[in-house]
Amino acid sequence: MAKITKQSEDFSKWYLDTVKIAELADYSKVKGCMVIKPWGYAIWEHLQRGLDKKIKAAGVKNVYFPMFIPESFINREKEHVEGFAPECAIVTHGGGKKLAEPLYVRPTSETIMYDTFSEWIQSYRDLPLKINQWANIVRWEMRTRPFLRTTEFLWQEGHTAHETKEEADAEANRALKMYKDFDREFLALPVLTGKKSEKEKFAGALYTLCTEALARDGKAIQAGTSHNLGQGFAESFGINFLDKNNESQKVWQTSWGVSTRLIGTIIVVHGDDNGLRLPPRVAPVQIMGVPIYRSDDDKANVMGAFEKIKEGISKIKWNDEEIRFEIDDRDEMSPGYKFNEWESKGVPLRIELGPKDFENGSCVLVRRDTGEKQNVKLSDVVEAIPDIMTDIQTGLYDQAKKFQEENTSDVTDYQEFKQKLEEGGFLRSGWCGSEKCEQKIQEETKATIRIVESKSDDGECVYCAEKSQHKVILAKAY
Amino acid sequence: MAKITKQSEDFSKWYLDTVKIAELADYSKVKGCMVIKPWGYAIWEHLQRGLDKKIKAAGVKNVYFPMFIPESFINREKEHVEGFAPECAIVTHGGGKKLAEPLYVRPTSETIMYDTFSEWIQSYRDLPLKINQWANIVRWEMRTRPFLRTTEFLWQEGHTAHETKEEADAEANRALKMYKDFDREFLALPVLTGKKSEKEKFAGALYTLCTEALARDGKAIQAGTSHNLGQGFAESFGINFLDKNNESQKVWQTSWGVSTRLIGTIIVVHGDDNGLRLPPRVAPVQIMGVPIYRSDDDKANVMGAFEKIKEGISKIKWNDEEIRFEIDDRDEMSPGYKFNEWESKGVPLRIELGPKDFENGSCVLVRRDTGEKQNVKLSDVVEAIPDIMTDIQTGLYDQAKKFQEENTSDVTDYQEFKQKLEEGGFLRSGWCGSEKCEQKIQEETKATIRIVESKSDDGECVYCAEKSQHKVILAKAY
Repeated sequence: MAKITKQSEDFSKWYLDTVKIAELADYSKVKGCMVIKPWGYAIWEHLQRGLDKKIKAAGVKNVYFPMFIPESFINREKEHVEGFAPECAIVTHGGGKKLAEPLYVRPTSETIMYDTFSEWIQSYRDLPLKINQWANIVRWEMRTRPFLRTTEFLWQEGHTAHETKEEADAEANRALKMYKDFDREFLALPVLTGKKSEKEKFAGALYTLCTEALARDGKAIQAGTSHNLGQGFAESFGINFLDKNNESQKVWQTSWGVSTRLIGTIIVVHGDDNGLRLPPRVAPVQIMGVPIYRSDDDKANVMGAFEKIKEGISKIKWNDEEIRFEIDDRDEMSPGYKFNEWESKGVPLRIELGPKDFENGSCVLVRRDTGEKQNVKLSDVVEAIPDIMTDIQTGLYDQAKKFQEENTSDVTDYQEFKQKLEEGGFLRSGWCGSEKCEQKIQEETKATIRIVESKSDDGECVYCAEKSQHKVILAKAY
Repeated sequence: MAKITKQSEDFSKWYLDTVKIAELADYSKVKGCMVIKPWGYAIWEHLQRGLDKKIKAAGVKNVYFPMFIPESFINREKEHVEGFAPECAIVTHGGGKKLAEPLYVRPTSETIMYDTFSEWIQSYRDLPLKINQWANIVRWEMRTRPFLRTTEFLWQEGHTAHETKEEADAEANRALKMYKDFDREFLALPVLTGKKSEKEKFAGALYTLCTEALARDGKAIQAGTSHNLGQGFAESFGINFLDKNNESQKVWQTSWGVSTRLIGTIIVVHGDDNGLRLPPRVAPVQIMGVPIYRSDDDKANVMGAFEKIKEGISKIKWNDEEIRFEIDDRDEMSPGYKFNEWESKGVPLRIELGPKDFENGSCVLVRRDTGEKQNVKLSDVVEAIPDIMTDIQTGLYDQAKKFQEENTSDVTDYQEFKQKLEEGGFLRSGWCGSEKCEQKIQEETKATIRIVESKSDDGECVYCAEKSQHKVILAKAY
């Protein structure tokens, strides 16, 4: 098996090696688009199922809208078109003919959905309207990397409409909290949450909330966003309702989404020099059994023991789901090869069992999160598994949390900021609130404001040293 | 609530009324594309989950390939390009620039996948390769109808590669059987299965197998297809492998798919003058409770009884899944309005409960498949539910099967054929095997060969009266 570059040597190369060796995705012949392979797609399916449950629990209903958007729709919301039109793929021909009006492949679905919202929403009785869609999205990108930034990607986009700004605020915050909870429970990802600056917000939004994770190379990675869209789209698309006093009002809207980028986030936050480390909740295989044998007799014993373990595991659940256990019984590969393979693919727990273990009535459990090995009696192994899985899930979270905390620093002046930035991590500082300072920082250091944490007139702007208006988190980002 | 046109008056109008009133889908402003609404999408989700399990159980792994296909790929397989290129949507601009090579939005994914297959497959050890993708597809259509024929639709497409023709035959037949089983178990659909004629087969396939259902207006509807692709694509895309003797061979391939058209099929096979009738396995809500009350006291009693039923139902399962039960507690609608609404939406079972029922310690169960009403003691209702659900599932199948059988006739001469065709249904006859007769029949009657059932030199061709080569099923079709 090919070797993975060390993170410390070249993190970018490590990333691409890991994607390749863990068989998550392949490059396709279509520029910027990836092929998501079975192992990568299975992670997406587990992630999707977990998040979909939370979305439905919030009373949001799934739907499907056309992926084509008439050019005139895209053009209707001024800020939105400026933000998205330049990165769209455009269909000009269909059914052998030039189209009268070009169709944009959705870069996000506000415009195609909200034209329909104006028909669905007539009265306050139709509100709140809460829908979600799992779909493919296209944004033309110059520099792409599998999962982190691709021309086509998969995502979910929630879209809601409300009577008041307060309700839209509450929904935008609910979605943000849902993402934060989901990131922890399923992906073992600690994230910071907060507002984006005006410069970084979604094109057409009143404000944008986001979750930000910290990769192991010290770069920030935006993992999810939630927007209060205000009434701008309602104005452009005529989404009006009669309120309880029979007066016409414009709706307040939100939209929120996460994408296959979450898989990239898992890789850069949890991965190590041996490859991927997967949180058990989203691992395609949670436990891999690797039998060790030379003779046929040994094989029979060892496989027999594994079958018993398998039977035991099939009878228990973890987090209300069947445990995904497999036995790697390929004869043509050595146990060592298999250890490497499943480590690089991030399988959370390995069970090794050879003739000596069999004689002793035991097996060896090897944790992917810590590398820790543990002898366990065959009679105890099934019972021990749920707690170990929980330990791995929380262990990955704790490791990432510790890393994030150790790599978050307060800085007060620009020199210190630039120095610390070299080391990577989140940098907390004051900011005067001007887009000019934000722009200058980005030009000079490539760092951007990831999160506006709070209003605070404590201290000074890290760039201009004028009075601070906000505490912000700055970092270089994916 | 708007009224649904009677099937006997105008079946097409009945169909569109049902789609609208059951809130399955809306027209979009993009020609030929529909908006799948929550009720329609939830049916798709249940269907998808059921079928996905069967696909995975067959050892097929899910993946995701780009939706764009370079023009040169589409052009590589001659028959394929002739079949599909005329109905493609073509992206000519991306990221603000004209593309060097136009990208086709996938009308099916053989070409984009098989280019990658040529990299994935090197040796017999890489075979069989079995993947599946759930995706959106675009085929430019002139005449569209929600679910039955739309420019964009959702589907799954399985793609496999094998060492031998026999293995590909077996896989194509396995997929066909999977669809047939799935149609019965989940959708309560009886289908005929068999081969397509050369004229009707998939562009680029060696042969095409299909499932055909019979709509209540006597028209056939193709519900799924499974192709043995032979070695044509392997030739065009260079998918070669070294066999056990170290000799280079071309793979044998299959592909197979079903789409959101299955929802259309459910509608036209099971629907009645009151709207949709849903098989419980895919119904978004399987049981709807409708409380009947005027006074607050009555309401408290009735709702209390319903809450107890709900609690009881939450503790039981049907087909290993939680039962989807809801209580329609909207104060602003009358019980009669609710009965109509949930009937038109196809909810399989309704529980009515009013003050008198409460006094008697009973409730009324109303089956959507038969309209049958049944008084059941409150203490017995939960226990009775699983069997009733099974009865409804098989009841719908049996009704449809009976209809199909009653509307399948053997015909021997062309006059009889044309007469019977007026009445609709499947017509079984001899066929000489010439495409000319097939073409003539279609031109003169609009009927097509739906299925080539068997080789048979018994009798005569229904058109030319020459010696018959095959028994075929003919019908007008969707």
